[in-house]
Amino acid sequence: MSLPELETPAVVVDADILERNVTRVALLARERGVALRPHVKTHKIPEIAALQLAAGAVGITVATIGEAEVFVEHGATDVFVAYPVWFTAARADRLRALLDRARVAVGVDSAEAAANAGRFLSGAGVEVLVEVDSGHHRSGVLPGDVVRVAEAARGAGLRVAGAFTFPGHAYGPDAAAPAAHHEREALATAGTALRSAGFQVAVLSGGSTPSLAATEDDGATEVRPGVYVFGDAQQWELGHCAADEIALTVLATVVSAHPDRVILDAGSKVLGADRAAWATGHGRLLDHPDARLTAISEHHATVVGTGLPGLGETVRVVPNHVCTVVNLVDEVLVVRDGKVEGRWSVAARGRNS
Amino acid sequence: MSLPELETPAVVVDADILERNVTRVALLARERGVALRPHVKTHKIPEIAALQLAAGAVGITVATIGEAEVFVEHGATDVFVAYPVWFTAARADRLRALLDRARVAVGVDSAEAAANAGRFLSGAGVEVLVEVDSGHHRSGVLPGDVVRVAEAARGAGLRVAGAFTFPGHAYGPDAAAPAAHHEREALATAGTALRSAGFQVAVLSGGSTPSLAATEDDGATEVRPGVYVFGDAQQWELGHCAADEIALTVLATVVSAHPDRVILDAGSKVLGADRAAWATGHGRLLDHPDARLTAISEHHATVVGTGLPGLGETVRVVPNHVCTVVNLVDEVLVVRDGKVEGRWSVAARGRNS
Repeated sequence: MSLPELETPAVVVDADILERNVTRVALLARERGVALRPHVKTHKIPEIAALQLAAGAVGITVATIGEAEVFVEHGATDVFVAYPVWFTAARADRLRALLDRARVAVGVDSAEAAANAGRFLSGAGVEVLVEVDSGHHRSGVLPGDVVRVAEAARGAGLRVAGAFTFPGHAYGPDAAAPAAHHEREALATAGTALRSAGFQVAVLSGGSTPSLAATEDDGATEVRPGVYVFGDAQQWELGHCAADEIALTVLATVVSAHPDRVILDAGSKVLGADRAAWATGHGRLLDHPDARLTAISEHHATVVGTGLPGLGETVRVVPNHVCTVVNLVDEVLVVRDGKVEGRWSVAARGRNS
Repeated sequence: MSLPELETPAVVVDADILERNVTRVALLARERGVALRPHVKTHKIPEIAALQLAAGAVGITVATIGEAEVFVEHGATDVFVAYPVWFTAARADRLRALLDRARVAVGVDSAEAAANAGRFLSGAGVEVLVEVDSGHHRSGVLPGDVVRVAEAARGAGLRVAGAFTFPGHAYGPDAAAPAAHHEREALATAGTALRSAGFQVAVLSGGSTPSLAATEDDGATEVRPGVYVFGDAQQWELGHCAADEIALTVLATVVSAHPDRVILDAGSKVLGADRAAWATGHGRLLDHPDARLTAISEHHATVVGTGLPGLGETVRVVPNHVCTVVNLVDEVLVVRDGKVEGRWSVAARGRNS
């Protein structure tokens, strides 16, 4: 089956490009001397995690206990839940059930959350990493508060393994280098403070595809990029991937044509609605680099550009933020050399808790 | 099980409020003398469609053949696919398979699409409505081109039943009344032109929850609102629903607290990422009307406001655009008087083609 015969919209992964992305970043991490623990929330697909682990990843990163459950079920043995999980009895039971089969670490960013986690998980063997705010100002404590939280965690019967941060402020024009600097600086500060307070610091974990190429290696012992496996329009626009490194596209059909625009049968229910303030559109077309998705609704995308295809023709849409696209579909089509060679189930789709 | 014991994030539907919304709009349509054909893309839940039909809806509206398949499977017998469907052989076969069990109409907005549909469906009994652009400038032809498209459809062996429009430009401050005027005017113009050209015009169909309350009834024979069953932050901000008419919320837990903000465990993977230029945030809290979700990522929402709940407490988030929320989850919890009374499967989730 060649691509133009597929029903659209369809989420399509180019296996060759994906494999090259997996290899490239594994080598980069090796050259830099940092462990690679890719964030699998980007793809939610066990087959891709297996490729990453085979290429040398030390384990995986997830965002939720639900994602951890899926990947442990599929064989993952070393999982970091990079999130300040608030435990309930039910959620702690779910985590405890994983500990027979995997090393599991979770995030913590307050003494209260540490005490709460300890009520359910004291002595269970779960590790915690203190989340540090390196400038994104989302969750995480300021570097000066890391020891206080770590001591609360230790006091609650949890094993403190180190610290982590997510430099989300790396997503923007010219933002990656300064954010990478903040990231490494915050981790170095946290590491020094923890060691001074008597903690053994096994892990100082940084994140993000944009900050991956940072040449400043002091601080992080591991990195947690996610998007690099697929690329997306955000990374393309920010210069963190090239067009020929984009492995995931959404095949769409032109269903309506007008002198100033064409309309595609892919909207926010398959492309996601992420649009950063600096983005030039709601997405782009891989084969028409000057085109932009100027408007999007649930099942329509309005495309403006030159030389656009006509009614009934198909295009490859590059979504703005690929992590939210994969979470919208139950499976992706795997293509190689323009032919469909299989389907992968998005096994952790919708595992938000 | 009371709500605070639920694992979060959880999508929760208040059955009493939902039922009141269904009844209120059914009565409104009856008073105005227009048929009600609710758009079920908002909820994708057969149980809710059944409530709408029981309250007097003449049929349902869907966006895709895939949605039509799910609702016909669950008993719908009168379905309008309000979309300019571009048919392939496979898609035409799927539509044809529905025609034994349901009256089905589809949209068309060009002579080329009409000819294409006719190649596969000539004489099959499917009805078409010509889509008119009433000012949203997405799909649809200008009112002056309606007859040309209708004649192409008739020439291709399709049964022309009338015209439809979606006044999407009604979504904005003070935009509903002028957009409703455009909607009714476009439908009236289309109806007159079609009748003059010898077509029997059974249906002139308008849309949208914002334009629902338009007092100008000339033009439309039916209306296709969707969001009214649930309400959302967009409708709340635009004054098209009150806080006590919001039937769907996302229960979330405060997982991180800071002097200037709290962080919830609900992000774009359960709330969606829709944010119109005029919106005051990425969503709101039902019980804290002054609070705003000022930032959102996949599993975090940053909330700013006064008197916010603390670590471990739960809140009810009102998402900006409810249609995209339901499409993210496999089921919703149904509550009445604060108790969970069941779960509904989002049977048409992800049916984008």
